[in-house]
Formats: sequence, C-alpha cells, structure tokens
Amino acid sequence: MGKALTIALDAMGGDAAPEMVVRGANIARERFPEVRFLMFGRKADVSQFLDRKKRLKEVTTLVHTDDVVSSKEKPSIALRSGRNSSMRLAINAVHAGEADCVVSAGNTGALMGMAKFVLKTLPGINRPAIASFFPTMHGESVMLDLGANVSCDAENLVDFAVMGNAFARSVLGLLQPSYGLLNVGSEDTKGHESLQEASNILRGSALPGEFLGFVEGDDIAKGTADVIVTDGFTGNVALKTAEGTAKLINEYMRHTFRSSILASLGYLLARPAMRKLRQRVDPRGYNGAMFLGLNGIAVKSHGGTDALGFANAIGVAVDMHRHGITEKIRSDLALLDRGPGKAQVAAV
Amino acid sequence: MGKALTIALDAMGGDAAPEMVVRGANIARERFPEVRFLMFGRKADVSQFLDRKKRLKEVTTLVHTDDVVSSKEKPSIALRSGRNSSMRLAINAVHAGEADCVVSAGNTGALMGMAKFVLKTLPGINRPAIASFFPTMHGESVMLDLGANVSCDAENLVDFAVMGNAFARSVLGLLQPSYGLLNVGSEDTKGHESLQEASNILRGSALPGEFLGFVEGDDIAKGTADVIVTDGFTGNVALKTAEGTAKLINEYMRHTFRSSILASLGYLLARPAMRKLRQRVDPRGYNGAMFLGLNGIAVKSHGGTDALGFANAIGVAVDMHRHGITEKIRSDLALLDRGPGKAQVAAV
Repeated sequence: MGKALTIALDAMGGDAAPEMVVRGANIARERFPEVRFLMFGRKADVSQFLDRKKRLKEVTTLVHTDDVVSSKEKPSIALRSGRNSSMRLAINAVHAGEADCVVSAGNTGALMGMAKFVLKTLPGINRPAIASFFPTMHGESVMLDLGANVSCDAENLVDFAVMGNAFARSVLGLLQPSYGLLNVGSEDTKGHESLQEASNILRGSALPGEFLGFVEGDDIAKGTADVIVTDGFTGNVALKTAEGTAKLINEYMRHTFRSSILASLGYLLARPAMRKLRQRVDPRGYNGAMFLGLNGIAVKSHGGTDALGFANAIGVAVDMHRHGITEKIRSDLALLDRGPGKAQVAAV
Repeated sequence: MGKALTIALDAMGGDAAPEMVVRGANIARERFPEVRFLMFGRKADVSQFLDRKKRLKEVTTLVHTDDVVSSKEKPSIALRSGRNSSMRLAINAVHAGEADCVVSAGNTGALMGMAKFVLKTLPGINRPAIASFFPTMHGESVMLDLGANVSCDAENLVDFAVMGNAFARSVLGLLQPSYGLLNVGSEDTKGHESLQEASNILRGSALPGEFLGFVEGDDIAKGTADVIVTDGFTGNVALKTAEGTAKLINEYMRHTFRSSILASLGYLLARPAMRKLRQRVDPRGYNGAMFLGLNGIAVKSHGGTDALGFANAIGVAVDMHRHGITEKIRSDLALLDRGPGKAQVAAV
C-alpha cells in the first residue's frame, strides 16, 4: 500500500453523473486502498448514491455546490461564470494543496481553461497539452496534443515532446522512450516549417530517449514511437479518425457474424476469444486524457464513460502522481537548449 | 459498349512494375472493352509481359523510353531531370490529346508536380488536390486533399469543396451530395481561421448539395458527409491513421482466431463470411487517388499495389472520364461568389 493520496472529483461531470462518478470512485477505492476522495457537487444528488457505498463514504469528503458547468458551455463563459462550479472547486482543491489530482468527465474545454487559469503552466511551458494512450501493435503509446492547442509553433511542439517523453519514462516506465513528430512523410523537408524547426531543436537536445524525427499517421497504430507529438488540431482529427475506423470495423464484424448460420455458429465457438479481443480494444481501458504541463495533475475522463471507464481515469491520475510526472517534466525542461531566453526560464 | 477511350499508362511506376501494370491493364481490358492503352516504358522490360497477352497487345501501343522516375526521387528533381521519363511522357500524352487519362503507380509527389506543370490547373483553381474513397457505415465517401497541399487557405478549401462536390455528383452519381469541412468540433468558432472563412463562403454559395458545416474525425467512417474537405496535411494524417488502425485491428483478429482451438474452429465455420468482410475492407478495392482540379484526368495508384488494385485505379480513371468530371468542376466554379477577382476567373 502506497502513501495516502487525495483525489478531487467533479461529481457532476459526465453524461451519467453523479451516479457514474460515485460508482467509478468505488471501483477505484478497491484498486487503490491508499486513495481518499474529495467530491464536489450537489449534496442531495450525490448523497443518494454515496450513502449506499459505506466503505467509499468513509474515505470521501463531499463538498456541496449548486453550480455545474454544462457540457455545452463555451470554455470562456464557464471560466467567468463557473467560479463555484463543481469542476472549478475540484481544481481549486489541487491548487490549495487539499488534493493531489483532479479528475472530471465534464466539458473538456472548460476543464482545460479552468485548470490552466487556476493551476498555471509549469515554468518554461507556454501551453499545456492533452495526452492519451493509444493501443498499438507493440502495446501502447502516448500521443499529444489531442486538442488543447489548435495552432502550435515549434516551441510548443518541443514542449510537448518534453512532456510526452517525461510521461513515457515515468508512467510507462520506459528508460529510453522513442519519440517522433507526426508529419506527412519522413523526409527532412516534409511538412510545415514549425515541424522542421522543432525537429532541429529536438535533434540537438540532451533529452533522454531516442528521437526518431518524423513519423506518419500509420506509425501511430504500428507503435513505431512510444510518444507521438503533434499539434492539437491534427492530434484531435487523428484520435477521432482512429476511433471512427475502429467502430466501423466493429460494425462490419457484427454484420459478418450475423450474415449466415455458419458464421453465427463460428462466432459462438470463437466467443471467449472474441471477448478478449473486445477487452483489448475496449475504449474504457484507454479512458483518461492527461493534461500535461500544468502545476498539478488533471485528468479528463470521456464524458460518455461508465463507472469502469471513470475508475480507469482515476487510475491514470494515481499513476501520474505516484511517478512524479510534474517534477520529471520540470527537470527535463532544463535539458533543452533553445537559446538564452527560454533556456533561462527552463533552468529555474 | 461505350465510346472508345485511351488511357496513358506509366508502365514503369510501382513496386511490381512493369509486370503488375501489364497484368492490371489486362484485367481492365476485360472490364472495359472500349478502352485502348498507350504504355510508356522500357520496351524490352514491358514487351516480355505484354507479348504474352495477345488481346491486350492488340489494344495497346507501347512507346519506348529509357528514363524512369524513381520512387525516392524528390518531385523538384524529377520535374527537371525526368523530361523523358515514362511518367512524364504518359502525362504529355493527355496534354497532347493522344490519351484521355493517365494512370501511374509511381512517385506521388513527382506525378502531382509533373501533372500540374504539364496539364495546368483549371481556370479559377489555384491548387489541385488528391482525393480518394473511404469506406463508411453507409457505403463510401470522398475525402480531399490527401497530401498535395500541406498548407491551405480558405480559397483552397473552397476549391476542394467544389471539386469534391462535382466528383460526388458525377462519379458517385449523387444528386445532392452532403459535404463538410474537417475540424475539431462542430461549433462555428472551432478550428483555424481559414476553416471559418471557407465555411462562410460555402454557406453563402449556390453549389448543389447540402453543406453540413464542420465535421469531425469520427464522421469520416460514420459516413456523415459524402464529401470531406480538409487540407493536405490533416487529410494525409487522417488517411494513414485510418489505414494503420484497420491493420492493427486485423492483426488483433488474426491473433484472436489463433488463440484457441475453439476460436480456430469458429474461424473455419465463419470463413466464407470473413472472406466477404475482407473483400469489403480490401484496400485494393479503394485503390486510385484522383488528382482533381487539373486540365485532364490523372489517377495515382498505390505504389505497392498488385494487378487487381491497378485495374481498379484504371477503373477510377474510366469513371472520371465517362462522367465528365473536368467539365463539371469547371461549370460549378461559376456558381461560387467569392468577390470580383476570383468570380471573373471562375466565370470564364
């Protein structure tokens, strides 16, 4: 059993909140006996589910607030009018040192906006990024940014490389992670200028791990690199394209197995193996987008997740805390040589 | 049987050329009895395969040239030093009116560079785009640009929308195709400024079909839109990410069916249905990237394709010609209202 650790939960975030959040926290409690919870939300709504989970209730402090950030709210509006929202109070708890991490299944843009405003970025980082795991031929890799920053310059991409690299070394436990910049070809002259600049900086850096230069879209699933670095626009499209493709093939499969009696019989025989396959590509297993580059740990669960997926998102936060991801990013930034201005900031 | 139609083939392009090209042309000859071929390549190399196909030989004129554009050649170099290459001569044949379309499985960048240089873009189009089919939940859709233009402004995106729309109406036979701009969210304020500008122009245009505004990565496979418009960087990454994801799931499947005796038995029973599934997602069925926006029809086959895939690429060229895609794009451009300068050009 590890050191005690407190997780702030936005009890009202997510399509099936607050029940899903309470049930997810209960699954996480079984997995991580050292975890305590600080839940924020409407007391009456949350209590009806929390009261049924005695052991969870013992390790949970529920703080009442009426305000909730809706999933449709624009981040800029949420930032101004959501000061007493369950989401904001959960983030505040991390800033105040009352919690070690925050997990929410609420509005992504609002969560990122608030987390950035309250927790601030690490010294030397201009913009935080959203990172997540991808299943690959060799296991899993990490990709970032998945949508926090629509436009990125070379410095941003380099920051993301540092953050992703630190994540792979700490949470994934890789000593020398490989990392690459997502591009439309592997030749040096391909792609936007910012990619070429970022590649030059990374090639000359003292970062641990192996810099692979440019990688392409099919390298994500191949597992060519442990860390895939890209701007938030491209990353978001790639993530959703992969999800859409997986769903399409799944649909084709269902159709195939129902297309004849023999095929249905075949499916029956193969069912235990198929179940394992489904587990392997179960999106709940990859639930939890990490916000990297902030003074604190924030994890975004998919809004449509169930309790199991939410528990996995809590697990990601626990992992990040245990492995000291924030400190690792901080110290890695000092290894970059990006000219005097930035380097001084990074060396603080 | 349709009107006679001549296709210029780069006999030396592709990993398995020239044998694959000759065999592919032979499959296409069976499918399209009205087609004649104009092949360019090293006579001795091509003849050894062509001589074995009597009926193909009867409808084929083989023009000798020693020069070949290598798959590794930079487009700019190929453009300068490849004046007598099989690829260039095949494109020249379209420009000279000796052929109606050109098909090559060679170097994509070189093919696009040469096609643009020789055939020129249509009046009103600044940049041609690469388009291809995607399998979806509802059949198939068209996406462009897939890599011809790394950076695109609003005008380019609008051009692509016109081109994709004309393609869907002619080749796909849709009367009112739906089309959307690929973005990271469906709200008006999302994404790059160029996307918002393009959206405004398209919303006010008289183009046939239904403009859906912004669509997201998962909409590609869902089939939300018949035409997905994006810049060449994002499109290329999305295409390759989808391909990589499909391969990954295929690999998982293979593994699953071999994981137990029951699963293997199940696979045996389901095999006929599985074969149909494989055909449905067979990349050869979707082979053939269309170059749109040029004064002439050019189709790029995948470099690693086999004869069947190459025949499909020829089929795409035949379809484009039969449906008068070039004329359709030309007339649609006149329907746009983009301010005086551009509109005049488009109205020529």
